Amino acid sequence: MMDTQLVLTGFLKRAQRYFPNKQIISRTSPTKTHRITFNDYVKRTHRLADALTKLGMKRGTKVGTFAWNHHRHLEAYFAIPSSGAVLHTINIRLAPEHIVYIINHAEDEILLIDSDLFPLVEPALGHLKTVKHIIVMGDELSAPQSSFPNVYSYEQLLQEADENFEFPTDLDENLPAGMCYTSATTGMPKGVVYTHRSIVLHSLALGLAESFAIKESDTALPIVPMFHANAWGFPFAALNFGSNIILPGPMMTPGLVLDLIEQEKVTITAGVPTIWLGALSEQEKQPRDLSSVRLIISGGSASPKGLIQAYNEKLGVPYINAYGMTETSPLVSMSHLISEMNDYTDDEQLNIRVSQGLTVSLIETEVVNENGPVPWDGKTMGELRVRGPWIASEYYNDERTKEAFRDGWLYTGDIAVYTKEGYIKITDRTKDLIKSGGEWISSVDLENALMSHPAVFEAAVIAVPHPKWQERPLACVVLKEGATASKEELIESIELEFAKWWLPDDVVFLNEIPKTSVGKFLKATLREQLKDYEVQI
Amino acid sequence: MMDTQLVLTGFLKRAQRYFPNKQIISRTSPTKTHRITFNDYVKRTHRLADALTKLGMKRGTKVGTFAWNHHRHLEAYFAIPSSGAVLHTINIRLAPEHIVYIINHAEDEILLIDSDLFPLVEPALGHLKTVKHIIVMGDELSAPQSSFPNVYSYEQLLQEADENFEFPTDLDENLPAGMCYTSATTGMPKGVVYTHRSIVLHSLALGLAESFAIKESDTALPIVPMFHANAWGFPFAALNFGSNIILPGPMMTPGLVLDLIEQEKVTITAGVPTIWLGALSEQEKQPRDLSSVRLIISGGSASPKGLIQAYNEKLGVPYINAYGMTETSPLVSMSHLISEMNDYTDDEQLNIRVSQGLTVSLIETEVVNENGPVPWDGKTMGELRVRGPWIASEYYNDERTKEAFRDGWLYTGDIAVYTKEGYIKITDRTKDLIKSGGEWISSVDLENALMSHPAVFEAAVIAVPHPKWQERPLACVVLKEGATASKEELIESIELEFAKWWLPDDVVFLNEIPKTSVGKFLKATLREQLKDYEVQI
Repeated sequence: MMDTQLVLTGFLKRAQRYFPNKQIISRTSPTKTHRITFNDYVKRTHRLADALTKLGMKRGTKVGTFAWNHHRHLEAYFAIPSSGAVLHTINIRLAPEHIVYIINHAEDEILLIDSDLFPLVEPALGHLKTVKHIIVMGDELSAPQSSFPNVYSYEQLLQEADENFEFPTDLDENLPAGMCYTSATTGMPKGVVYTHRSIVLHSLALGLAESFAIKESDTALPIVPMFHANAWGFPFAALNFGSNIILPGPMMTPGLVLDLIEQEKVTITAGVPTIWLGALSEQEKQPRDLSSVRLIISGGSASPKGLIQAYNEKLGVPYINAYGMTETSPLVSMSHLISEMNDYTDDEQLNIRVSQGLTVSLIETEVVNENGPVPWDGKTMGELRVRGPWIASEYYNDERTKEAFRDGWLYTGDIAVYTKEGYIKITDRTKDLIKSGGEWISSVDLENALMSHPAVFEAAVIAVPHPKWQERPLACVVLKEGATASKEELIESIELEFAKWWLPDDVVFLNEIPKTSVGKFLKATLREQLKDYEVQI
Repeated sequence: MMDTQLVLTGFLKRAQRYFPNKQIISRTSPTKTHRITFNDYVKRTHRLADALTKLGMKRGTKVGTFAWNHHRHLEAYFAIPSSGAVLHTINIRLAPEHIVYIINHAEDEILLIDSDLFPLVEPALGHLKTVKHIIVMGDELSAPQSSFPNVYSYEQLLQEADENFEFPTDLDENLPAGMCYTSATTGMPKGVVYTHRSIVLHSLALGLAESFAIKESDTALPIVPMFHANAWGFPFAALNFGSNIILPGPMMTPGLVLDLIEQEKVTITAGVPTIWLGALSEQEKQPRDLSSVRLIISGGSASPKGLIQAYNEKLGVPYINAYGMTETSPLVSMSHLISEMNDYTDDEQLNIRVSQGLTVSLIETEVVNENGPVPWDGKTMGELRVRGPWIASEYYNDERTKEAFRDGWLYTGDIAVYTKEGYIKITDRTKDLIKSGGEWISSVDLENALMSHPAVFEAAVIAVPHPKWQERPLACVVLKEGATASKEELIESIELEFAKWWLPDDVVFLNEIPKTSVGKFLKATLREQLKDYEVQI
């Protein structure tokens, strides 16, 4: 067989050759929509590669991006790796000291920064040790004023660049193509390096009928930042399969997301449950036409049952969970039903839909505890471990590699069970598990149950210290606007679903649950906020 | 990223772990259906690997199969490569001297032969130079009488084998996994070697929404022999994606195929146009319920327009062309319509459907003539060349490699044009092209046009020598049972579609067109039969 390397340049050629008229649509402001065809996009990508090469980008050079979701960011997505360099997408929502740390740690030599984000970064520029050039992305043809010596306008560089720039044809599939830092609970963020091979294989996985089934007739709207696990791989897959791609810029509010779906006839979209929770409220207030949508993918954290039901049943829009993390590219599993479940009751089907799903092709998962792999009984918990061709094997130049990567597996830090059908069900993060009287209690199960109550907008359950049981669960609840519910009523509403000792000892009502930049509950912060809480014995 | 090798053992594990109850259904005789679950199948596959290992199978050992489509053949499909050995599927329809040649040339050490085919092979056994063991596949628990020393019963070996046999976990993805010989126009067949990597990637391609979209809810019926390009990859993909798989044994008559579709609620099926032509006649005589079918894939040779129309419009069953060959694993392209074609007229859509289609992901195609790549104008012909990770790079130990493999491309020997949308349209085999007065005439285009005539069952157009124009086209036509049509009427029916000089000079009526074992027209035989034909000047 031919020794054809699985490299991203092939995707770019395919996009231009077979799908020249497909579109990249960027919502750069609430009133402004930018459209570009694949053909023009690919030409600009060649120009960008030429411009970066002139600035000294070589094979292996790290080029950082600090940007929202838009066509210029997408140009960087292909121009950099297709040249043999490394696309480092920087999470713009990190604390300034973390941003400085990761740019220095990755040794980025060039940065591409959105013009509206540049003022935020400016004060930190003095702390950067390896950056030689900064390119400001925006419509402007001139660079902003800065104390940093080499600052350029993106559009001006592109004007001066050559669209006939040729990408190298001898890239090895195991070359680094991208990198992304993931925040750690303690300490600095940890870097994950993606290769051409891992991105190409992951993109193929997104085209499988068993997973996202991305194809030419799709219009894809990833509502996931492009600095977060490559927007779950959508940008790469969409170019290869010829789908239109919608990039919502900084505007990810529920109302604007629903507007985009309606206006652009989106067929597939993906985001965290917080987005879908917000979109559901918005849709109830002001309904949009969502009939074009064939699939909503929810990931990043667990979706409560009520949310899944509301989309699938009330709105009639298929809503499916997916599971993954930065270290896994991210797709690991998806909660599509398989054919034997056609005979399940609605409740049994919902139990599957609420899970993290069936492991996708080429990926292996196991849930292990001190006795080895757990039985598929829906209740024996263990830590989920993962391996496969798009799973990281280490953190980039980081001592913490040995904590997570052992025996050829990535240990996810997620506590899970397998349903009897082999679907993964995350019950907790290792560090969020509640250990009461020596037994584990799943905070996620309690949260999901609480969130099914009609008055509850969000619920997080954390462990609080207890003199007798070591730890006990405490529910932190945000009620829906205008809704009321008592502690007793909420606990009563879930008492049939759990053993008595699982039930939270108390409910604290809050105005909001603290969240990470990607919408996950920040339980460490919550525990800190409630550290003086005392359990009533 | 993890250095996970793309090997077939992963498919087997996945099949057993997640889809233990899915079925392999073999039609071993017109009245007998054999059913086995994936779980039991995988256990038997382990037993077979153990039995073969005990007979001396090692990494790299070539094991030949000489068999119809059934579960035992499918056991060999995984047991052999998963052990690091090489599955050599032998075309049972080859001439005896070719069969002897390829077994000796591949250096097969073990042969697995169907019990009903064993008597056919027996006389040739004395000519085999490397075969040490023969295993006879059938229900019998004892081996047939033979002058060959080591002949075993498959079922008896399996009974004595260990189902806990462990496949190696250190296979390299570039190891040979399978081989298949393709017949040459002159000389002995030429061998193609598939690797684990090429088979895994090709299987993924069959799961893409843009191609076959094979998934768990499918019931797949490949009506392609398992000795022909791995039954187009269905067996491997079905196990990985968890589809039921139907293996029709030796019974591939149209009536039995339609019965199987109806009885087993087949969702996806694939075969050569000859099968679909026969099935159409049969369906018109005795209609079966085909409502379960979501996709018929036709390949191996071109489908006439009328056939495509009949399935898509009259029967309401989606019928799509695919293109490939033994050297290409085989999938290269598929004639799915893309979204911009929604606005096409019926005729324009049919012109796309009749093509060999759009090149699938990871594969590159080009049509080249003496001036380089041809324009996408639907008329400039050139030779189709192909490259990609599941395209062969050579013929196994064969001097003829240099004729077909040049500059990193496989030259297919097919003459093609690109439509303006970049769809491949095969107009001829290089050797079947008609060159009249220095200009090329496509025999395939003429055949397709003739086959649209309601009285025509099959039509082949060949070149005959001509004193003035060097070559002229001659149409060879088989009429439908009971139908009549004159030469003049047939030629008149196509004269609006072609330049006058393209029209066949004459029509010869035949009872049948000679065909290869896979249903392709044997034009060399036809030219030989008609060598004394004289053109009327």
